[in-house]
Amino acid sequence: MKKQQTRPNILVVNDDGITAPGIKNLIQVVQKLGNVVVVAPDGPQSGMGHAITIGKPLRFDKVDLYEGVEMYKCSGTPVDCVKIAVNKIFKGKKPDLCVSGINHGLNNSINVIYSGTMSAAVEGAIESIPSIGFSLDDFSEDADFEHCKKYVQTICEQVLKHGLPAATLLNVNFPSGAGIKGIKICRQANAKWAEEFDQRIDPHNRPYYWLTGVFQNNDKGEDTDVWALDNGFCSVVPVQFDLTAHHAIPVLNTWTFDV
Amino acid sequence: MKKQQTRPNILVVNDDGITAPGIKNLIQVVQKLGNVVVVAPDGPQSGMGHAITIGKPLRFDKVDLYEGVEMYKCSGTPVDCVKIAVNKIFKGKKPDLCVSGINHGLNNSINVIYSGTMSAAVEGAIESIPSIGFSLDDFSEDADFEHCKKYVQTICEQVLKHGLPAATLLNVNFPSGAGIKGIKICRQANAKWAEEFDQRIDPHNRPYYWLTGVFQNNDKGEDTDVWALDNGFCSVVPVQFDLTAHHAIPVLNTWTFDV
Repeated sequence: MKKQQTRPNILVVNDDGITAPGIKNLIQVVQKLGNVVVVAPDGPQSGMGHAITIGKPLRFDKVDLYEGVEMYKCSGTPVDCVKIAVNKIFKGKKPDLCVSGINHGLNNSINVIYSGTMSAAVEGAIESIPSIGFSLDDFSEDADFEHCKKYVQTICEQVLKHGLPAATLLNVNFPSGAGIKGIKICRQANAKWAEEFDQRIDPHNRPYYWLTGVFQNNDKGEDTDVWALDNGFCSVVPVQFDLTAHHAIPVLNTWTFDV
Repeated sequence: MKKQQTRPNILVVNDDGITAPGIKNLIQVVQKLGNVVVVAPDGPQSGMGHAITIGKPLRFDKVDLYEGVEMYKCSGTPVDCVKIAVNKIFKGKKPDLCVSGINHGLNNSINVIYSGTMSAAVEGAIESIPSIGFSLDDFSEDADFEHCKKYVQTICEQVLKHGLPAATLLNVNFPSGAGIKGIKICRQANAKWAEEFDQRIDPHNRPYYWLTGVFQNNDKGEDTDVWALDNGFCSVVPVQFDLTAHHAIPVLNTWTFDV
């Protein structure tokens, strides 16, 4: 007879901040699956990528937002949140799952690199915790996450059941609106942002600049996350933190370095 | 007869800030190779990873630090510096080379992910600019970069000559002290930081935390950047920004998602 399993311990993090609707929806789903601990930034940390806080100290305090949920806010980045959770809350006994999000806005394609949501999940994976980042194609504060919830649940269940291949994590993105056609396992599309800087003049007559940009997909593949989302699917991209371009090593070994 | 070539345009960036000795040394080397434009943070931005500034505007001003060098300081992250350089300085005519550093401190192994120096070079590569990040195993403000210079020069010359494989860049790290044994083309070692948070109490009796940590190499391979540096070599790792764990796609396609 199979031994009765204890409920898994689940770390929840995000980059939109601890009061964001997205993390509330994520907590509601994973509460059904295990014991939840939330460690999230005390304010918005979008676009923080894999930043960590090294030049100044961190604040880290327990908060009481949702009944029965153990929650902490942290003054640092999403990656700081994972680090402090592992070190101060779990104290060496790693959680069984780390989920990040649900982000207000897509983190498909190259956005995986800029996203604090995804970087938190990457940090979970570096800590050998099965990790998933979730994002929805809706930036608004009142985004509706309801249609994502059953997908979030089944993806978490599968990861808890199978684990993930070593040194990988999942980047999950949802289209907005009901009627998701299903889940597609994808690769990261070859796309980028074409930046534009909106120049303005301050009251002291000095220029300042707002970063803006246009997303440019240069990838016609039908196996990409951009294609899946454009066609109404939930995209799931396995992500790794070994950034080595292994295929380039033999090329570089043909070069001559004169010193 | 070969047509005489024009001098290449070279963008220089870093994460230690525009006044750091490391960038001064890098400028001295690449001035021999082409027309140099420097766009660097106005203060230290170590550990900023691939962060971008989206919640507040940027300042961006010309400065006159080193004779004959076109230089700009930016209030944003290293990645912001590359974006604003491409958009405001080069205006669509991309530079022929983007070099970042020389960083005060190693960016080998997993540090590639946390490093602002490397993220600036990654951003250059995303912009299809041949890009290289350079780092030295010496955190101190008075680090000696002299022994790195001939290696920086030959690596830049080779990249200008051959280009780089599509969607890749180089992560170059130097041991401290003279007597580098040569250059090794490597893969990123499987290593991580074991974090510790140094808890202190402020004058108002509230706790705060400093992020500290110990670097743990879990990789016995002799083809890694950690091995090369430990053995007195300059390490060169080709890096990519397609984070897809392609090998995991068939695994995930065997899973069943019940929705």
